[in-house]
Amino acid sequence: VKYINGKMKDINIAYIGGGSREWAWKLMTDLALEESLEGQVKLYDPAVSFAEDNAKIGNGFSKRSDAKSKWKYSVVINLEDALKDADFVIISILPGTFKEMTSDVHTPEKYGIYQPVGDTVGPGGLMRALRAITIYIGFAEAIKKICPDAWIINYTNPMTICTRILYKIFPEIKAFGCCHEVFHTQNLLRRIIENTLEIENLTRDDIKINVLGINHFTWISSASYKNINLFHLYKDFIIKHSEKGFSTPEEDKEDIVFRSKNLVKFDLFQKFGLIAAAGDRHLAEFMPGKSYLKDPETVARWKFMLTSVTEYRMKKSESHAIYRKKVIAGEEKLELKPSGEEGVRMIKALCGLTDFISNVNIPNQGQFQSAPRDAVVETNAHFSYNSIKPVHAGDLPSSIKSMVIRHIYNQETVINAGVLKDKELAFLAFLNDPLMTISSDDAKSLFNEMLSNIKEYLPGWKI
Amino acid sequence: VKYINGKMKDINIAYIGGGSREWAWKLMTDLALEESLEGQVKLYDPAVSFAEDNAKIGNGFSKRSDAKSKWKYSVVINLEDALKDADFVIISILPGTFKEMTSDVHTPEKYGIYQPVGDTVGPGGLMRALRAITIYIGFAEAIKKICPDAWIINYTNPMTICTRILYKIFPEIKAFGCCHEVFHTQNLLRRIIENTLEIENLTRDDIKINVLGINHFTWISSASYKNINLFHLYKDFIIKHSEKGFSTPEEDKEDIVFRSKNLVKFDLFQKFGLIAAAGDRHLAEFMPGKSYLKDPETVARWKFMLTSVTEYRMKKSESHAIYRKKVIAGEEKLELKPSGEEGVRMIKALCGLTDFISNVNIPNQGQFQSAPRDAVVETNAHFSYNSIKPVHAGDLPSSIKSMVIRHIYNQETVINAGVLKDKELAFLAFLNDPLMTISSDDAKSLFNEMLSNIKEYLPGWKI
Amino acid sequence: VKYINGKMKDINIAYIGGGSREWAWKLMTDLALEESLEGQVKLYDPAVSFAEDNAKIGNGFSKRSDAKSKWKYSVVINLEDALKDADFVIISILPGTFKEMTSDVHTPEKYGIYQPVGDTVGPGGLMRALRAITIYIGFAEAIKKICPDAWIINYTNPMTICTRILYKIFPEIKAFGCCHEVFHTQNLLRRIIENTLEIENLTRDDIKINVLGINHFTWISSASYKNINLFHLYKDFIIKHSEKGFSTPEEDKEDIVFRSKNLVKFDLFQKFGLIAAAGDRHLAEFMPGKSYLKDPETVARWKFMLTSVTEYRMKKSESHAIYRKKVIAGEEKLELKPSGEEGVRMIKALCGLTDFISNVNIPNQGQFQSAPRDAVVETNAHFSYNSIKPVHAGDLPSSIKSMVIRHIYNQETVINAGVLKDKELAFLAFLNDPLMTISSDDAKSLFNEMLSNIKEYLPGWKI
Amino acid sequence: VKYINGKMKDINIAYIGGGSREWAWKLMTDLALEESLEGQVKLYDPAVSFAEDNAKIGNGFSKRSDAKSKWKYSVVINLEDALKDADFVIISILPGTFKEMTSDVHTPEKYGIYQPVGDTVGPGGLMRALRAITIYIGFAEAIKKICPDAWIINYTNPMTICTRILYKIFPEIKAFGCCHEVFHTQNLLRRIIENTLEIENLTRDDIKINVLGINHFTWISSASYKNINLFHLYKDFIIKHSEKGFSTPEEDKEDIVFRSKNLVKFDLFQKFGLIAAAGDRHLAEFMPGKSYLKDPETVARWKFMLTSVTEYRMKKSESHAIYRKKVIAGEEKLELKPSGEEGVRMIKALCGLTDFISNVNIPNQGQFQSAPRDAVVETNAHFSYNSIKPVHAGDLPSSIKSMVIRHIYNQETVINAGVLKDKELAFLAFLNDPLMTISSDDAKSLFNEMLSNIKEYLPGWKI
Repeated sequence: VKYINGKMKDINIAYIGGGSREWAWKLMTDLALEESLEGQVKLYDPAVSFAEDNAKIGNGFSKRSDAKSKWKYSVVINLEDALKDADFVIISILPGTFKEMTSDVHTPEKYGIYQPVGDTVGPGGLMRALRAITIYIGFAEAIKKICPDAWIINYTNPMTICTRILYKIFPEIKAFGCCHEVFHTQNLLRRIIENTLEIENLTRDDIKINVLGINHFTWISSASYKNINLFHLYKDFIIKHSEKGFSTPEEDKEDIVFRSKNLVKFDLFQKFGLIAAAGDRHLAEFMPGKSYLKDPETVARWKFMLTSVTEYRMKKSESHAIYRKKVIAGEEKLELKPSGEEGVRMIKALCGLTDFISNVNIPNQGQFQSAPRDAVVETNAHFSYNSIKPVHAGDLPSSIKSMVIRHIYNQETVINAGVLKDKELAFLAFLNDPLMTISSDDAKSLFNEMLSNIKEYLPGWKI
Repeated sequence: VKYINGKMKDINIAYIGGGSREWAWKLMTDLALEESLEGQVKLYDPAVSFAEDNAKIGNGFSKRSDAKSKWKYSVVINLEDALKDADFVIISILPGTFKEMTSDVHTPEKYGIYQPVGDTVGPGGLMRALRAITIYIGFAEAIKKICPDAWIINYTNPMTICTRILYKIFPEIKAFGCCHEVFHTQNLLRRIIENTLEIENLTRDDIKINVLGINHFTWISSASYKNINLFHLYKDFIIKHSEKGFSTPEEDKEDIVFRSKNLVKFDLFQKFGLIAAAGDRHLAEFMPGKSYLKDPETVARWKFMLTSVTEYRMKKSESHAIYRKKVIAGEEKLELKPSGEEGVRMIKALCGLTDFISNVNIPNQGQFQSAPRDAVVETNAHFSYNSIKPVHAGDLPSSIKSMVIRHIYNQETVINAGVLKDKELAFLAFLNDPLMTISSDDAKSLFNEMLSNIKEYLPGWKI
Repeated sequence: VKYINGKMKDINIAYIGGGSREWAWKLMTDLALEESLEGQVKLYDPAVSFAEDNAKIGNGFSKRSDAKSKWKYSVVINLEDALKDADFVIISILPGTFKEMTSDVHTPEKYGIYQPVGDTVGPGGLMRALRAITIYIGFAEAIKKICPDAWIINYTNPMTICTRILYKIFPEIKAFGCCHEVFHTQNLLRRIIENTLEIENLTRDDIKINVLGINHFTWISSASYKNINLFHLYKDFIIKHSEKGFSTPEEDKEDIVFRSKNLVKFDLFQKFGLIAAAGDRHLAEFMPGKSYLKDPETVARWKFMLTSVTEYRMKKSESHAIYRKKVIAGEEKLELKPSGEEGVRMIKALCGLTDFISNVNIPNQGQFQSAPRDAVVETNAHFSYNSIKPVHAGDLPSSIKSMVIRHIYNQETVINAGVLKDKELAFLAFLNDPLMTISSDDAKSLFNEMLSNIKEYLPGWKI
Repeated sequence: VKYINGKMKDINIAYIGGGSREWAWKLMTDLALEESLEGQVKLYDPAVSFAEDNAKIGNGFSKRSDAKSKWKYSVVINLEDALKDADFVIISILPGTFKEMTSDVHTPEKYGIYQPVGDTVGPGGLMRALRAITIYIGFAEAIKKICPDAWIINYTNPMTICTRILYKIFPEIKAFGCCHEVFHTQNLLRRIIENTLEIENLTRDDIKINVLGINHFTWISSASYKNINLFHLYKDFIIKHSEKGFSTPEEDKEDIVFRSKNLVKFDLFQKFGLIAAAGDRHLAEFMPGKSYLKDPETVARWKFMLTSVTEYRMKKSESHAIYRKKVIAGEEKLELKPSGEEGVRMIKALCGLTDFISNVNIPNQGQFQSAPRDAVVETNAHFSYNSIKPVHAGDLPSSIKSMVIRHIYNQETVINAGVLKDKELAFLAFLNDPLMTISSDDAKSLFNEMLSNIKEYLPGWKI
């Protein structure tokens, strides 16, 4: 990396999962829009053709006049080549295929267990975690060997477990996990201000929050805009909207299966007094199974959706493939506008060009007071040159802490099970998940079936 | 207190709940058998006639030739008189009557929630806790005022909450909670040795253990007899007895509703690798509701019993009343033999006459590594003159910790709800209990019904 | 406080020590230059005429065309009136008079103990602390009663002890201590960059640092400008300037007794590897007495000065009084330019108008990892609406920690001695100070003499 | 190890420093007197002939009729052979020879720094530590490789550093450090009781204490005999003996250079309120240099002695050699009577034959509340089968903590310097020792001279 005329040049980014759509496209867009950074991105993906598509798209951006900087994209076919000389490593992979995802989400439905996402906690989240752990152990070992000083940005779910396993294997790693759920909650607060007070043109950054918890189960313990305490505003607002709920224009633009009316979030505020800072589909999965996910009718009543892998994700993927071809063929033009993600801003800060505070997933050094020290937690942190320092977020009330810390130790059990390839230990975590409201015997059957479905992703396990 | 010729004289004991049967009789017996202690016991109980009965029985002991020391028992009719000049305060009360206990245990059965005991956790334990907190706040305030230097021995359930609320109200209090469940587990290990190796005449004290957790959900992380690691022995034993289970002669003497075959304990060992150190009836209540308490058939399959308040406890109480009359009338003679409890031994150590290590419930100073600092936990401690110092017990594996710490924070929520008289907060704890496998709406109905049933014990609450 | 058209209006500031010169003038200037804040300042000072002078000067600013906001200054004659309705309370007092300060600094010289400042640690710092504690207990009690929600900004030395005693008396207080020593070190780094690289027009804010320690004994553990690690630069620079030292233009403008060539700072870097972030005169007082303060010759060799109270401070005060009169008479005009202090910027952030990170003295919540939890430490913190949240600063190496934590516990002893009015306890702290290199008997004589000199400021003590 | 008929047989002990006199003879005596233990001891010592002498003496014991058990002693000539199959490893070595010890103790005298012992802290202690660290790193590595499950008992000074470096190199090691200084203090309390009350025939075990601190700077925070608080008794006693002091009969039997009248201990009690639990000669070395060690006259006034290496230790060694020859020749007969040490009792407990509480040096797990977690501290611990669990000792007052924790971090610096072979880092610790009351320049000269004197024990250092 060199600093020349206000620009950081020759930045080397390794992108693991470089064939990804959502995250890779967002990153390439944001890089193209950031005039002070320049360099190359090496795309690595077992699905090489997807990586090649992305390289074409990325290099296409560099030729456009509306791109503020020119990045060079190339495809590498092994991990070591990607990591060589990397200053930053981005990881956004799918641990498995739609086949495994289908098992994650839909097998539990046979036992009356419904997961809107199934990628974080619950039976689906656990199975995905076991697959991811196996893969991430390899990443951590390669990073330790090839680019121990690089900054690692994780986007893969389950976020907490993916980030934590990296540290478990290579404790000196400089890894952090990024997620936009908190941003969406800031946007919700912004829209509530706009709807309530006569204020316009706010941005997410105007909403100052203190946030703590674990990814997808994060809580805002204070929020303000200028000198306005937003908790009062929020309270009044949700009382008014307690029946029909409310969604932001941004949320309404999402595919229908991702939409919600924030009724779970509102209900949690009325019960617990803090603002849950993730989407309803995620939040519901962390709460006892008979709360918001009792059955599809209950889900409908709370106005969010179960996302079918077979009916939605697979079809969506097909239609996206067609779109992708068109993009490469130049038949469709991608718009260069900010993605709303902070990855590039974080890279810029870590390069020393700016500094700012944002929420991030890193090991607990005390920023979340009662959480265990080695757990990966989500709070604000200060990003600056080669440094991420957590901001002290304080503590949660016991009513929330009981749930959060239960999950933290469950995640620890999952990680240990993944490292030890220990089926029995994995089952203990499975059984202890709040969605597991069925009998132990049924739980065992479900566990065995789900594990069997993903066994090709668990080399060395006795299944 | 004076030390004369190897005897501590003029010891002043206040007994709150002095009309109790089980605990008071055990204490009076053990005091009569301890030759190095002497003094008086002031019995305080709203049920004055029960206290008077006990005074007669206790003073009767002092006249017997097989009593090794002479204690003077008297009845006092208000708390302040009892506490005046007390060196030790014993608290063993029933927070409510059979009426409330019936609600605690049987109301949840309407929703398919079965509790074998219902005095510690679960919906019943929570309701009992709320009643106890109200009463114990009064005790703590009186102790602070009248006998702040006295040692307080708590026997009342829910043990953890009763002990913790005393410290919350009066942080300098010298209180601790005693429970025999761990002793029974030591006895089980003793019997297993006797059954397995050719060794006889062991006592509980021969079994050295390291124990940690919270009352009724305590775990033995190492156990030995001489140089024998008992974990290997235990493992082999339970494999052999995994079908029919095993019970000690002492357990077989219990009333049938209290008996078990330790199958839950054995199952927990096979799953978690540590020895759960409480009776199956208690242990089952801490685990997810669909594990051992799914329905009466499941309970039967695990070979323990649900204890009916109406069918058992109330009838037992009546028959005991008759027995009691006979004892006072001299028609029945109580045998003076050690109760197996450690209260008197602890008093002796706190007086400086001996010192020893035993398990006890006190606030965490780090003895249970990952537990929060102000939580009341159960581990070994060293008892000596005017001192109880916890022994470092280390930590539990994450699989168990997830469950234990979830309960600890839930107890904290219950305590806060009790202090604040906050119905909504109490409901959050209720909802977060592992036995609560029903829908939120049903949970709310059940909660309201149960709370209404006990409202006369919750003065100042809006119910 | 009201937010109208981008301005916070009706801010109420109580200024305790409102007759002060240095700090009050800086504050009034900075307030006049901050267009987004407006309100009134109540000046309270036992030296009423000084407060009146300042009110005149402050109100004079409000009439000037170059003032960007109009503040109203008034004098109040008792503390309660000052605190009434206060949003912010600023405390900058002199605990005692020149008479006591003379004793603090010069009495130890009879025993060969030289203190360049004598207001923080050492025998002088301790005596000043004892006086301040007595006074600050009164402040804390009044704040608790009258304005418990106000933010308290302390400028008085000894900073750490003054801030900590406020929290000891009123744990919920929202107090913090501000000091510019770290700023000066940032400026030094700025000048080193300008001198070394071809970069100009930097500001202090361009220098990003991580700082931790206790006030006047704070350490920078990393420093950067853009992507430049300043430790390498600093190392090379001080090797070049190890003989003659170096001072910034700003430092050279100071009165001669305050100047230094930063040779102590440079020497500490070469020994300990971190950048000490206070002036040499302060740093020298924290180190073992025979290091930099062995005798006046040693001080001269290290190119800093002992500040005589009689020869410098008292004379300076007289000349300043004359200047003051001229200012009030309009014969001298004060320039309105930023003072370089951050008090007003912090007020602005706490009002919600901005947010930023700066170093501050507050109780340790873990931001300084190894320091005890209730100690007041200096690290970065994030200032935002009604919130100061420490940024995790990590830890110091054991070589420095040994010294810093020794001082922290010594300060705790001083505070306890001050609260208990315990002469013997105060002596233990006195004896344990690193400057105390004389025999115990001599130390006792010195202690008694110094304590006797300040006894009128220690009501209730047995001296 | 086998347990047969109440006896542990085939115990394997490795004795590193097996040619030692004091500790080896005590151990062999205590082993001969313990009927429940039996096995072999492998003596390893670079001074092979000394080890051979001890083997003869030890095997001689086994032939005696008054020996209650028969141990087999043999000499091994390399460390690996000694450690092979060891159940216990005892380490009592001299890190260097009288030549180095002479430098440790007497070189600082040229600068007016007097150390009565010079083996723990102070300039002599530091130099000894550097030598020991180099040697102990080798021990730790060999233990890790050859007998990782063995229990390691350290008797070598500096105790804290020797024990800590073992854990630093091999964190899973089961090592602890034993020292009799606390026992002597218990004996002092016993004698005070006998002298004050009409009680006779007490033993050290009758004195119950809570102890915390670091070796040779340990503090008793409570002490009792039966129900008697010994602090009141101690206070009255030392007031009466404040001029002439007091020594126990046991102390009076010591060689004159080791005797004291406990005046330092008494003075520390009057100042700090706790009972310092080490001999005056050790205690004085931890306190600021001008307190008890200002000059030989001051030492004489406090009635303890400086122990000359040349005038005492070397001569003593010669006379002991003659005595040793006589013992081996059978001209002198050693008496088999308990040594007063607890090593054998600890071995017995770790074998599972008993359990008890004693003070011990192990890493802090929270037993000494404010001390850092990895520091080796001295508190009570519970010894039982294969287990040493610390008893929670609470905390020290800030006045003492300031001194103790300063030493702890200084020890950490010494250890790091030893591991890194870093001369400059070692000097920082040297300079920060409380005995270092000379100028930095003089300190540097002294340091260089002392380091040069021991350089053959510091392979790989740049000296």
